[in-house]
Amino acid sequence: MVHMRTIDWNDESKNITLVDQTYLPKELKIIECDNLASICEAIRSLRVRGAPALAAAGGFGMALAVTLSSATSMETLLKDLKVAADTLKATRPTAVNLAWAVNRVLKATEDAYDLDSIQDIVISEAIRIADEDVKVNKSIGKHGHKLLEDGDRVMTHCNAGRMACVDWGTALGVIRSAVEKGKEIEVIACETRPLNQGGRITTWELMQDNIPVTLITDSMSGHVMKNGMVDKVIVGADRVTQDVVFNKIGTYTHSVLAREHEIPFFVAAPVSTFDPNGWEETVKIEERDGDELRYMAGEQIAPANVRVYNPAFDTTPMENITAIVTEKGIFQPPFLLDEVIM
Amino acid sequence: MVHMRTIDWNDESKNITLVDQTYLPKELKIIECDNLASICEAIRSLRVRGAPALAAAGGFGMALAVTLSSATSMETLLKDLKVAADTLKATRPTAVNLAWAVNRVLKATEDAYDLDSIQDIVISEAIRIADEDVKVNKSIGKHGHKLLEDGDRVMTHCNAGRMACVDWGTALGVIRSAVEKGKEIEVIACETRPLNQGGRITTWELMQDNIPVTLITDSMSGHVMKNGMVDKVIVGADRVTQDVVFNKIGTYTHSVLAREHEIPFFVAAPVSTFDPNGWEETVKIEERDGDELRYMAGEQIAPANVRVYNPAFDTTPMENITAIVTEKGIFQPPFLLDEVIM
Repeated sequence: MVHMRTIDWNDESKNITLVDQTYLPKELKIIECDNLASICEAIRSLRVRGAPALAAAGGFGMALAVTLSSATSMETLLKDLKVAADTLKATRPTAVNLAWAVNRVLKATEDAYDLDSIQDIVISEAIRIADEDVKVNKSIGKHGHKLLEDGDRVMTHCNAGRMACVDWGTALGVIRSAVEKGKEIEVIACETRPLNQGGRITTWELMQDNIPVTLITDSMSGHVMKNGMVDKVIVGADRVTQDVVFNKIGTYTHSVLAREHEIPFFVAAPVSTFDPNGWEETVKIEERDGDELRYMAGEQIAPANVRVYNPAFDTTPMENITAIVTEKGIFQPPFLLDEVIM
Repeated sequence: MVHMRTIDWNDESKNITLVDQTYLPKELKIIECDNLASICEAIRSLRVRGAPALAAAGGFGMALAVTLSSATSMETLLKDLKVAADTLKATRPTAVNLAWAVNRVLKATEDAYDLDSIQDIVISEAIRIADEDVKVNKSIGKHGHKLLEDGDRVMTHCNAGRMACVDWGTALGVIRSAVEKGKEIEVIACETRPLNQGGRITTWELMQDNIPVTLITDSMSGHVMKNGMVDKVIVGADRVTQDVVFNKIGTYTHSVLAREHEIPFFVAAPVSTFDPNGWEETVKIEERDGDELRYMAGEQIAPANVRVYNPAFDTTPMENITAIVTEKGIFQPPFLLDEVIM
């Protein structure tokens, strides 16, 4: 298997390096973000995306903020960090991991005793979040591979792989762990309109690891299931509330089809994705720019002024989910979120 | 409402003019086909597509063949026509209307008494097929508009509109007829990957007629249904057998979601689409080039060598269909195809 960090902190140059995923699969382009505006732009433009990777981006964004602040007192520095935290969290409001990481860094500063210690605390906490993510993903894989059998053909949506995390991946991490255990797994990747994270990134990642993958359009999921081409479905999650799983738009559609065809439907996500106080109706789903459907790779593919509805996520009710895999184990219905988090 | 013929025969220049739909919505480009190879290329490349339009293309293709043949005896001319018929039918094997029209023209030549009469018969039969298509679509609309109520929000997939026919349309024809009766109808158009006939053509057609339309990705259909944004679904058909409806890939997925959300699911198609001797398992589904998913508007959007599965159609079982509308009326389950055709 290939190993690489999708996003990382350079302690020498005090900046963030990350894979600009908008160039995949044509180019593996690494960019540097050395101020808050550039990491916010990278998050908003989905140069870095995927719930766990956004946690790392949030943490490292705070590291940038503490490095660049000109504050000369603890009080003003903490105020600067609070402003940076709000700016970072506003870039992608639905994904819970971003806010989780930013808040975790903020909370760590409560232990600070002087100006310099704040900088140390913020940077080490951010690095810790990224390091933990790799470990957490490996644990998700360690538990989750038991859900997959030798010979399984597994459908996935969007990209819940290395590129959605710091390394390894959640849904693709489970597949990688199964392959590492010697199981033969074939993957069906849904292209995941409108931004084609499945077609561009999941396929590319799996081909790098020599895991067989077939690309289909999102609309084909019913057809491939009906024709017995899918044994299991596994996806990631952007937020897990008491009643639903928020994930990339299209996930709900696949979950209904999986139930119709009696195909197990798994969600793989770190505990940091869980929002035990949240409910479907309390979370606002991010609506993205309609141009994502009007243009593709710079080319116009729909009338320039057509009305577009472009929600980034949908919600899958718990009754459509067979199991949720976290770093703490495999959870089956009823999903008692408090037990998972404990 | 706009009126225009998507495809037509020029009796003076003895050629076919058609809208090259691959340029939509950026450009309304009309091209001329003056030999069999060019009309076959236009069919294969989906410059002309949609079941009823393919019937007209097949008929006019035969008109081209009879015009260009250098045969000097009835026997060799009929042989030439037979070869042309096979060539035309092989371009899109799943769509039944193409073969239906070509066979109808061939059958008409049985009445020929000399060489010249064959040419007259072929050309007038081809023109008759195109003229009838407009009448048939208007009849489908006349019956079908009763299925739609004032204020309905109607989802559709692919393009079963004017551009899929000679004029008016089947599924969009029903919507047009309802609007003509004074009903306010809003349309949700699924973009219809991989060739985006919904995003490119359905939206463009409806905007030309000032019928409100919102574009979504195919994967959003579950989400919009779950959120109460869809009152009815209506699609066209490429072939109706005793047990299933063959239509654009993705239709089956929408049908399962519609049933899950108790939303009526209608199919609008001329009787020429019916294949009463056919069954799901006897019809081979056309598989198209994987590059349709690897490239979009000339740009690479997936790894160049990724494996792709790209069936053009899927099959929706009759139990997922609320009603089928033809020029003969509205048919509800059980769908006795022999009764529809009689």
